[in-house]
Amino acid sequence: MVSLHLLSLLINLLKVGAYNIVSSSPLRLGIAGLGTVGAGVVRLLCEHADLLKTRTGRLLQVVAVSARDRTRDRGIDVTGLQWYDNALDLVQDSNVDVIVELIGGAEGVARTLVEKALKAGKPVVTANKALIALHGYELAMLSADYQVPLLFEAAVAGGIPAIKTVREGLAADRLLRIGGILNGTCNHILTVMRKTGQEFSTVLKEAQDLGYAEADPSTDIDGLDAAHKLTILAGLAFGRPVAFDSVYVEGIRHIAAQDHIFAQHLGYRIKLLGLARKTQNGLQAHVIPCLIPQYAPLAQVDGVFNAVIAEGEFVGRIMIEGRGAGAGPTASAVTADLVDIARGHAMTLWGVQSEVPEPVRACPISTGEAAFYLRLQVEDRPGVIADITAVLRDYGISLQSMLQYPAEKETLSSAESYASSYVPLVLMTHHLTSESAMQAAVAQIGALRVVTDTPVMIRIETP
Amino acid sequence: MVSLHLLSLLINLLKVGAYNIVSSSPLRLGIAGLGTVGAGVVRLLCEHADLLKTRTGRLLQVVAVSARDRTRDRGIDVTGLQWYDNALDLVQDSNVDVIVELIGGAEGVARTLVEKALKAGKPVVTANKALIALHGYELAMLSADYQVPLLFEAAVAGGIPAIKTVREGLAADRLLRIGGILNGTCNHILTVMRKTGQEFSTVLKEAQDLGYAEADPSTDIDGLDAAHKLTILAGLAFGRPVAFDSVYVEGIRHIAAQDHIFAQHLGYRIKLLGLARKTQNGLQAHVIPCLIPQYAPLAQVDGVFNAVIAEGEFVGRIMIEGRGAGAGPTASAVTADLVDIARGHAMTLWGVQSEVPEPVRACPISTGEAAFYLRLQVEDRPGVIADITAVLRDYGISLQSMLQYPAEKETLSSAESYASSYVPLVLMTHHLTSESAMQAAVAQIGALRVVTDTPVMIRIETP
Repeated sequence: MVSLHLLSLLINLLKVGAYNIVSSSPLRLGIAGLGTVGAGVVRLLCEHADLLKTRTGRLLQVVAVSARDRTRDRGIDVTGLQWYDNALDLVQDSNVDVIVELIGGAEGVARTLVEKALKAGKPVVTANKALIALHGYELAMLSADYQVPLLFEAAVAGGIPAIKTVREGLAADRLLRIGGILNGTCNHILTVMRKTGQEFSTVLKEAQDLGYAEADPSTDIDGLDAAHKLTILAGLAFGRPVAFDSVYVEGIRHIAAQDHIFAQHLGYRIKLLGLARKTQNGLQAHVIPCLIPQYAPLAQVDGVFNAVIAEGEFVGRIMIEGRGAGAGPTASAVTADLVDIARGHAMTLWGVQSEVPEPVRACPISTGEAAFYLRLQVEDRPGVIADITAVLRDYGISLQSMLQYPAEKETLSSAESYASSYVPLVLMTHHLTSESAMQAAVAQIGALRVVTDTPVMIRIETP
Repeated sequence: MVSLHLLSLLINLLKVGAYNIVSSSPLRLGIAGLGTVGAGVVRLLCEHADLLKTRTGRLLQVVAVSARDRTRDRGIDVTGLQWYDNALDLVQDSNVDVIVELIGGAEGVARTLVEKALKAGKPVVTANKALIALHGYELAMLSADYQVPLLFEAAVAGGIPAIKTVREGLAADRLLRIGGILNGTCNHILTVMRKTGQEFSTVLKEAQDLGYAEADPSTDIDGLDAAHKLTILAGLAFGRPVAFDSVYVEGIRHIAAQDHIFAQHLGYRIKLLGLARKTQNGLQAHVIPCLIPQYAPLAQVDGVFNAVIAEGEFVGRIMIEGRGAGAGPTASAVTADLVDIARGHAMTLWGVQSEVPEPVRACPISTGEAAFYLRLQVEDRPGVIADITAVLRDYGISLQSMLQYPAEKETLSSAESYASSYVPLVLMTHHLTSESAMQAAVAQIGALRVVTDTPVMIRIETP
């Protein structure tokens, strides 16, 4: 009986890949970079050593590390570990099976290390979103040529298993849309602005003091970080790398406290969203602040939380929410990749078994259509609305609603003449307004003498 | 150069299981059960055939099916497929590599089919939650003995990749809690009750007419279906099967329209939750209607949507939301399992590589502590509150708040005497109230002459 079974099992193993035959020897790790995340990974591997052994059948063992400063106290014990001043030396160490790259940056040591490791046949786990977003095509080719996996769960949305969800959990379906709230710093700032009525610069300063924003915050607040993550998600969702420089990016510096108030009056909230979808014109991919209906699931995601949404033909809409940054969540994601490697589960970079597909370019945002929120600061006198709506009419833009707000108290109580008081005027366009027509109209409206400040234009999305 | 690389790659392959060596021949499927889900799977496999080939490198091909009625029109083309009247015959068919069990039920043909398939070395994919919840220990032993995977992503929360998230995405972390909104029928009914103020029986009837509830709705509304799913999730989260009969289950029949109103006044919403957590006393696992704070992420999940939450030491709280039922989402989940098999990714049933752990029993709910909402219908006369609070005091139960509502209009306008008018009295206890003390106190309060109806006790959770 048993021998017959064994025979049929062996035959089946070849046909269906039943259980994987994976080594039970320790998986020996070389960790490059011992910043917050690197130290977190070492701590997790230590604290959960037994758990990981139970779940993978193997010991996940750090054998070597590399960082700049040997003497710094990182709250972890590195005695007994091989120390390399040069991260690239980790690749040559024959005791290291897997390279964990936590240095960061799209170029320099991080990139060289990952390339060298793949060429040496050593699987790589990284949290480096810029690297994958910018060089995901070349790295996929290396990974395929050398048949070595490069995993990067931690590169998108921290502790949320977003990459596994898209590349495996939803692998049976054709995805129509992917995206979400991909930057916790921006989401925190926008949330605080909405809840307290404070201006952007005040809230940014506070976020920096709290450690929620970097000293140089531009990567976050100008949308670059979210764009890296969206580029990766879109590549996975549509099975093909996306050219990073074709993704349209707008940050949140121009959003004012009053935009949150007006959005709320209109039934919306303002969020920085990364969104990619397939359209007749090709791939749309952009990171933009937008008004979303306040009852939409993404509108409920506040503070430093991230959320990823995906929509598929069969599965409908899925949303995952969780902590998008921090040592703990990121360490969880990095180690989940190590668990996959230990279990013998390795994926091709973009989740396809064909030749590595060439990068696709997102189509220019000017080719799109959307609904727009437009806030103008205008002189409070007759004829102003006529001037503005005439421009919109000339560009064929229909309005869905218009809100005129009374002049602010300070202005009213001032001694200035009637003609020089300013009021905010908020317009919302029809949802199929051409982006290029809108941009041209807004430029023309901004140049009108009665419009005093730069117009603020925010797209409206129903994610 | 290349030969050196190849050598190192081969060595590495043995050590780290780099890319899997999986066949590129078609994966031939035998599908048992062609109801809504079975037909959905056949349709998805047909419509997404190219996509699935690209993602797995293999053709996912239905070669044989089994269902009761050959003549029924299911909207799918079954010509050219081998038809079996007896599902068990699929196992003997040497053309079938993988069995897809979509018959349902914890016993009978479904169970026999799965057991036979595993013994014959054929991987099984199933959507059968009752089967896994009730026999997950025995099936895990079979799967381990014969080294054949049994996958069941579709058994929990439909299209949401909940099982992959817990068993793989969060595999690096120690989970503290798992659960969520696991039954779309109950969530739909509770949502409509809250939004319309209608009573349970009215909404159930409407849901049945709309096809959101079965003709015999007890599996859903009495919590059994959610309990199956919770049993599976808890087993995966804690790496050990949970004895199904130890999971405490309460349904939603006793929730009245006014409970939703009172909950809202108190800042809560009522949801049927399945929750499992590790405590000092052991495993807590229950399916209960509960009040949750209205700002909690789970409180936002309305209608037929399901949501799974998990909390880990490092990762913090993760929530996934999506469609928990229906042909499309379920077909997506079933096929995602087939993609995993085609890619050579197979998991042990409970996600551990040790010997199959024996089932653990959840501790009796009476050993727990919670905050409680208690609604009483009482006579509207002096001394009633004193009588009731005296009982609570005797059991050492502290109140956090008490709401006394004026008598209903009909009652007030009636000609009855003052003494015979009834009013609702709502009490909320301190959050560390002993369950056993509360149950005893409620029994005694229910027996008071001044309390007219059966008291309604709902636990309060902060998920």
